[in-house]
Amino acid sequence: MNNKDTIHMSINEFKENGYKVIDWIADYYENIESYPVLSTIKPGELRKSLPKNPPKDGENFNNILTDMDDKIIPGVTHWQSPNFFAYFPCNATGPAILGDLLSSGLGIQGMLWASSPACTELESHVLDWLVDMLHLPEKFKSDSFGGGVIQDTASSATLCALIAAREKISNGKINESGFDNSIRVYTSMEAHSSIEKAVKIAGIGSKNIRLIEVDQDFAMNPIKLREAINKDIKNRKIPAFVCATIGTTSSSAIDPLNEIGEICNEFGIWLHVDAAMAGSASICPEYRFIHDGIDYADSYCFNPHKFLLTNFDCSCLYVSDREALIKSLTINPEYLKTEVSQSDAVFDYRDWQVPLGRRFRALKLWSVIRYYGINGIQSHIRGHIKSAKFLSDLITEDNRFEVMAPTVLNLVCFRYRESNQFNKLLLNELNNSGELYLVHTKLNNKYTIRFSIGQTNTTKDHVLNAWKFILKKTEELERTMVK
Amino acid sequence: MNNKDTIHMSINEFKENGYKVIDWIADYYENIESYPVLSTIKPGELRKSLPKNPPKDGENFNNILTDMDDKIIPGVTHWQSPNFFAYFPCNATGPAILGDLLSSGLGIQGMLWASSPACTELESHVLDWLVDMLHLPEKFKSDSFGGGVIQDTASSATLCALIAAREKISNGKINESGFDNSIRVYTSMEAHSSIEKAVKIAGIGSKNIRLIEVDQDFAMNPIKLREAINKDIKNRKIPAFVCATIGTTSSSAIDPLNEIGEICNEFGIWLHVDAAMAGSASICPEYRFIHDGIDYADSYCFNPHKFLLTNFDCSCLYVSDREALIKSLTINPEYLKTEVSQSDAVFDYRDWQVPLGRRFRALKLWSVIRYYGINGIQSHIRGHIKSAKFLSDLITEDNRFEVMAPTVLNLVCFRYRESNQFNKLLLNELNNSGELYLVHTKLNNKYTIRFSIGQTNTTKDHVLNAWKFILKKTEELERTMVK
Repeated sequence: MNNKDTIHMSINEFKENGYKVIDWIADYYENIESYPVLSTIKPGELRKSLPKNPPKDGENFNNILTDMDDKIIPGVTHWQSPNFFAYFPCNATGPAILGDLLSSGLGIQGMLWASSPACTELESHVLDWLVDMLHLPEKFKSDSFGGGVIQDTASSATLCALIAAREKISNGKINESGFDNSIRVYTSMEAHSSIEKAVKIAGIGSKNIRLIEVDQDFAMNPIKLREAINKDIKNRKIPAFVCATIGTTSSSAIDPLNEIGEICNEFGIWLHVDAAMAGSASICPEYRFIHDGIDYADSYCFNPHKFLLTNFDCSCLYVSDREALIKSLTINPEYLKTEVSQSDAVFDYRDWQVPLGRRFRALKLWSVIRYYGINGIQSHIRGHIKSAKFLSDLITEDNRFEVMAPTVLNLVCFRYRESNQFNKLLLNELNNSGELYLVHTKLNNKYTIRFSIGQTNTTKDHVLNAWKFILKKTEELERTMVK
Repeated sequence: MNNKDTIHMSINEFKENGYKVIDWIADYYENIESYPVLSTIKPGELRKSLPKNPPKDGENFNNILTDMDDKIIPGVTHWQSPNFFAYFPCNATGPAILGDLLSSGLGIQGMLWASSPACTELESHVLDWLVDMLHLPEKFKSDSFGGGVIQDTASSATLCALIAAREKISNGKINESGFDNSIRVYTSMEAHSSIEKAVKIAGIGSKNIRLIEVDQDFAMNPIKLREAINKDIKNRKIPAFVCATIGTTSSSAIDPLNEIGEICNEFGIWLHVDAAMAGSASICPEYRFIHDGIDYADSYCFNPHKFLLTNFDCSCLYVSDREALIKSLTINPEYLKTEVSQSDAVFDYRDWQVPLGRRFRALKLWSVIRYYGINGIQSHIRGHIKSAKFLSDLITEDNRFEVMAPTVLNLVCFRYRESNQFNKLLLNELNNSGELYLVHTKLNNKYTIRFSIGQTNTTKDHVLNAWKFILKKTEELERTMVK
C-alpha cells in the first residue's frame, strides 16, 4: 500500500476500509447470538452463490463486506458465539485480534533471527513468561538448555517432538538413512488422534503405537504402560516416545505424569506431554495439580488458542533439550546462512518447526498477556471451570442423566440414561435448533454428549440457559419416543 | 469481546483500539522507507528492553502501540519496504491485511466442512479460480478427482505430497507398518532445502534422496535423472517421488517438466512440482511457458504469499488424486465424526494437511483476487519482471559485474568479477547501510548476490536507485581494496 499509484490500495483507502472492517467485526460480536450457532447451509450451497469465474477487473473493497454478510455469514459455524460448546474452544478476543492485525500489517517473516529479530526475541520472551505463569519447569526456558516455540497446532508440536525423539534415540540415523522399523510409541487409548497422525507422518507406522489402557477415569494406566514397554523390549523393539495427555479430548482426563515419568526415566524414553486444552488452567494455583510430575517431561505443549484468549493459531511447544529438536529439523542451505546464526548467539526458529517461514504470532500472545494480566486470565479461566462444575452438579441432580467422567476442568461429559440412539437424536435436535452447538464422543462405548465451556464471552447464564434448553428438548423427545 | 463485563475488551473499546491499529499500520507504510531495511539490533537487545516478568494486572492497549514504536520496530527487518530485495518477497497488501483481519474477527476453525462450511467452500472455490488463472490442468480442480488446499508454506505442502506418494507406492503399508527403507526420492541439486527436510521428517532418510545434477542454467538434467532411477531400480530400490522446481531459490531456474514428467510417467513415479515463488507468474500468458509439461504433475504448489499479493501464510497445494492425499493423512476419531463427512459430499481439509485445526485463510486470497482482478495482478507481476530485466541489462552493460544465471522472472543473480571475499564485503556494506537488503547464494561455487524483486510497492525507481547505490558502494570498496 502506498500513495503513488493506482493498482494498489492507497494508504487513505486502507484506513477507510480498515475502519469499516473493524466496525464489521464489532457488529458481528454485537449480533453474534442472533445467528444459528451451527451453520444451516447444505453442502455446495455457498459455492453456488459465488461467481464461477474470477473477476477480470478489480472490485471495490465494499463488495467484500457486502458478501461477508450475504454469503459468508450463513456458512459460518460461530466458534465465537457464547453458545458454542462443541469441540474445544478457539478463543478470540479484542487484544488477540488486534495483535494479529499488527502482525499482518508488519508482514514480516521470522524464519531466522536475522530475518526479523523482534519476531524471534519477543517469542522467546513471552514463552519464558508463560513458563512462569504456568509454573512449568525452568528447563523449558530459553536461558537453560531448552526453550519454547509457537507452532500452529498441537498436531504439529507433537510431530516435532516425535521427530526429535526419533532422532535422539537413533543418534540421527533415521534422518540420514531412514528406518529399521523397530521404534515403538506409547500413548493412551484416549489420546488425541494427532498422535497417530504424527506416527504415520514420521514413517513409524501406526502398528507401532501401543494404545495403553485407561483407568475408570479414562487416564493412562501406568502399570499397563510398563507391561507394554517390557514386552516390546523383550521383542527387541526400541521404546522411543511416550505421549501423556493432560486433558483428553473426549473427557478431559489427566494422565498420571509422576508414574509415567518415572517409567520413561527408567527406560530412557522421551516423554511428551500434550496439554493442548487443559494446560492453560495451570495459571491458577488451584489447578496446578494437573501438571504434577511435569519435571519428567522432555517436551510439553499447550494451546493458548484454546483456553488462553489468543486467536487461532497459537500452540506453544517447549523442549528441555533444544539441541535434540534443532538437530532433527535443521537444514542449512547457502541462501539461509547468516553470520549471527553461525555464531550460536540466537535462535533460528525455522529449525524448531516443519515449515520454513513463520508469522509474527508472538504479537497476539504478548498483547493478550499484557491486556489481561495474570489476574485477568486467572479470573477468566476460573469463571469457566466454575460454570462447568455448576453444570455438572445440575446434571448429577437429574436422575434421567448421568455424568460420564469427572468434571475436572471446563468439560462436562453426560448422557441421557437411555439408548445411544436417544442421545444421538437429542444432539441432532439441539444442534439443528441453532440455539447452541455441542458434539459427541464415546466413553465406555456409550454415546456421550460433550459440553465444553470456554468461549470468551460464555457466562454462567449461557450455560444455565443451554441446560434448560437441553431439558426442554429432552422432554419433547421423551414425549415423541413414548408415542 | 462484549458489552457486559469488565475483564474483556468491550465492543466500543475494540473499535477505538481497532482504528488506532489501522492508523498505526497506515503510518508504518507511510514511513517505511525511513527505517533501515535490515534491523540493526544486536542479539538479545530487544529482550533486554522487556520486563523480566509478565504483568500481574492488565494494561491499557495503548501501551502495546507505544512499545510497537519504541521496542518492536527497531527489531524489525522490513519485509514490506520497497527496498527489500532479500530472499523471496512476502507480499503484504491492503486487501490481504483486511481479509486476514476478517478471518481473525470471525475466529472460526475450519478443520471439517461442518466446523464452518464457508471456510472449506470458499477455499475450494478460490483454489479452483486459481487453476484457471494460472492455466493449471483441470485435474487439479475440486470437481475432478483432485483439488486444492491452502497450506502454511511450501515446506508443508511438499511434506504432504511426499507422504501421499510414500503411501501410494506402498499401498498404505508405511503408514501402517513403518518402513522397509527402500524408497528413493529425486530432486535437483538446486532444489529447496525443504525437500530434504520433508524427506527426513517422513523417515525416508536424507541418504535416500538423489540430488540430480543441473545443466548450465541450474535446471535439472533429465538424462541424469533417468540414470539415477535406473541405477536405483537395479539395486532393488523403489523410486517414489520426484520434486521438480519451477523457479529455484538460488537462481530461479526452471526444471524441464516435459522431460521429467515423461520419465515419471514411464516409471510410475509421483511428480511434485514446487513453484513456490515462480508459479504466480503464470497468470500472465507470456510467462505460462514456465509450466510447460505441468500436465504430468501429480501435485503442484505455489505461494500466493510470495508473488500474488497475499499476506503470509498462504501456500496452495494441488493434487490430481485427492484420495491418495486424504488416505495418507486421515484419522477419524469419534469426536470428529460428522454425518456429512461420512457421506462424502464435502471436503474435510484436516485430511489434506499436517495440523488438525485451520484458519480461514481463503478470505485474504479471495479479497486480493477480487480487489485486484486478474488484470491488476498481471500488471503487478509484469512490472516486477520488467524491473528485473531492466536491472539485469544494467548489470550486463557493466563489465565489472557478471550476471550469474538467466533472468527469467523477477530474480537477478550477479557478482562483481572478483574474489568471493570482495562480494561478501560488498554485501555486508550494502546491508549494514540500511538502504536496502539483499542475500547471497553460491552458483558454480561462486559467491553470488541475489536481487529479488517482488515487494508490493517496489517500483523501477527503487530498483534503479538500489543499483546506483550498489555501484557507489562498489566503488568505495574498490578504493579501499587498492589501498
